[in-house]
Amino acid sequence: MSELRRDPVTGRWVIISTDPHKRPQDFRLPQEPPPSGGFCPFCEGNESHTPKEILSYRRSGGPNGDGWDVRVIPNRFPALQVEGSLDRQGEGLFDKMNGVGAHEVIIETPRHDESLATMPAAAIEKVLWAFRERVLDLKQDRRFRSILVFKNHGAAAGASVDHSYSQLIALPIIPRQVRDEVEGARQHFAQKERCVYCDIIRQEQEVRTRVISENADFVALSPYAPRFAFETWLLPKRHGASFEDAPRHEYESLARMVKETLQRINRALLAPPFNLIVHSAPFQDGLADVYHWHVEIMPTLTKVAGFEWGTGFYINPTSPEEAAQVLRDAAI
Amino acid sequence: MSELRRDPVTGRWVIISTDPHKRPQDFRLPQEPPPSGGFCPFCEGNESHTPKEILSYRRSGGPNGDGWDVRVIPNRFPALQVEGSLDRQGEGLFDKMNGVGAHEVIIETPRHDESLATMPAAAIEKVLWAFRERVLDLKQDRRFRSILVFKNHGAAAGASVDHSYSQLIALPIIPRQVRDEVEGARQHFAQKERCVYCDIIRQEQEVRTRVISENADFVALSPYAPRFAFETWLLPKRHGASFEDAPRHEYESLARMVKETLQRINRALLAPPFNLIVHSAPFQDGLADVYHWHVEIMPTLTKVAGFEWGTGFYINPTSPEEAAQVLRDAAI
Repeated sequence: MSELRRDPVTGRWVIISTDPHKRPQDFRLPQEPPPSGGFCPFCEGNESHTPKEILSYRRSGGPNGDGWDVRVIPNRFPALQVEGSLDRQGEGLFDKMNGVGAHEVIIETPRHDESLATMPAAAIEKVLWAFRERVLDLKQDRRFRSILVFKNHGAAAGASVDHSYSQLIALPIIPRQVRDEVEGARQHFAQKERCVYCDIIRQEQEVRTRVISENADFVALSPYAPRFAFETWLLPKRHGASFEDAPRHEYESLARMVKETLQRINRALLAPPFNLIVHSAPFQDGLADVYHWHVEIMPTLTKVAGFEWGTGFYINPTSPEEAAQVLRDAAI
Repeated sequence: MSELRRDPVTGRWVIISTDPHKRPQDFRLPQEPPPSGGFCPFCEGNESHTPKEILSYRRSGGPNGDGWDVRVIPNRFPALQVEGSLDRQGEGLFDKMNGVGAHEVIIETPRHDESLATMPAAAIEKVLWAFRERVLDLKQDRRFRSILVFKNHGAAAGASVDHSYSQLIALPIIPRQVRDEVEGARQHFAQKERCVYCDIIRQEQEVRTRVISENADFVALSPYAPRFAFETWLLPKRHGASFEDAPRHEYESLARMVKETLQRINRALLAPPFNLIVHSAPFQDGLADVYHWHVEIMPTLTKVAGFEWGTGFYINPTSPEEAAQVLRDAAI
């Protein structure tokens, strides 16, 4: 069983997820990129090599056989386990609880050679719909207080398999980054009775220097104070706190916007590794007017180093105005 | 001139440090490791290829010639510039100020083949003394509110040159990570009239499972809630808020502890890349009893990915009890 532990100074929680099969020598070198070629458990036809599926959208066949478009399975090496109670405990100065949560893998396509940049928008929409369905299901478990849906693409961005997949982690606590965003948005609303993200969208649409593209429902922009070069946010124009409560047509628009944005990034930056993160309200009352869900995409272009770890403060070598210009020019 | 910009939601500041010589294609691929061999501007005899030195400790010769043991120079590509005023401004919703600060490089040894793990402890003590002298000097500039001294060792940890060096950045604001530590320590002190780090040292010395080693003045331990596998803290046993105010014999003890700890890490983990960060009180009144300076060393063993970026919450595959055991067993 993994553990959640709290740093007694900063209050930062970490997951200590010890792999009982790991030996000391397994830590000796940085992870190598996963081998390409060879056997892939995520490819269609290899379903028996994964844990049993939680959900699939299928053209044909039944659970755990072929014929699927999107498939959701439990993570074979979960950071958190779904069974058990939190069992909060102190150890002198320190605080811990059991690593209770859910950790699932969303296999986005049956084909090894496809990615979110190359799949048809309709196939990406199914992936987004699977995210939604899993979040709505897990939200009913009262032990969970927030869910993170995210994607690591490429070994340098943390992917352990080169077949296109996303992950979902349901957490028994609201993590710091999520709390910081929600509290910031709450303060803005308390002062102005307006959503801070709606205000950002309005200002960016006027100024235009950081807008990359727009469609009916979404605006893609380089944020004013990005941590990373070419960090890109996809914001729904209609206010809504939770990804999982968006109207159906927004998933269709978002699918097109994700594909288009990744195509721009791939063209401008030669298909870099990246992280994609869905930012959605945690499960608290009173956030409907305050928070505004969105998607953040961060190409892995520079290394995070001592300065960032020591300060929580990022040095970005590219201004968002430059990045937006480069990505606008990389139209397909 | 670089800019400091504030995220309007979370209040997080970033440094936008645009290199005017960078072209879009320079962002296309992740940085490659710096080439080994070839010309090194940090080696003794090549002083004319660096900016003019700010400080040196010498066996012989005068400024900017050979004969030095430790040499401090301005960073040739500084994230912040020392000239100018902050010129705080708003841009609608957004806040920015000029990127005023200092960014210096401490060349730790004249020899290309040495590192903090192999240098004599007396040479490391000179490096620590140079850190101290530079911090005391920059602290007199009233524009600065905190100084971070840190080291990136190895390309994967962000080093851009493979000659052993550290960096120092003086900042006009107190960054989030520093503020979080100080505020956590302040709350603990307000409740208990005791320093939280002194309490941690006392508890760890009793429990012993996370203690790696001790000498007269320092204890090396795996912290209870580490973000990274084999994260190691070096804590002075005597309470003190600021690195630069430590008594001379503590630098001598710390030099020995840094060397010994890096030797253990190199032996157990095959000389991994790492970051080393000096955590010291920012320039605020009232922190003398509250904060406790220390050094954190973080080997680069796993990749930070979407989950960490989305939550600010780390998954660590090694418990600190295991890590401490492995490092204890790696005695020299």
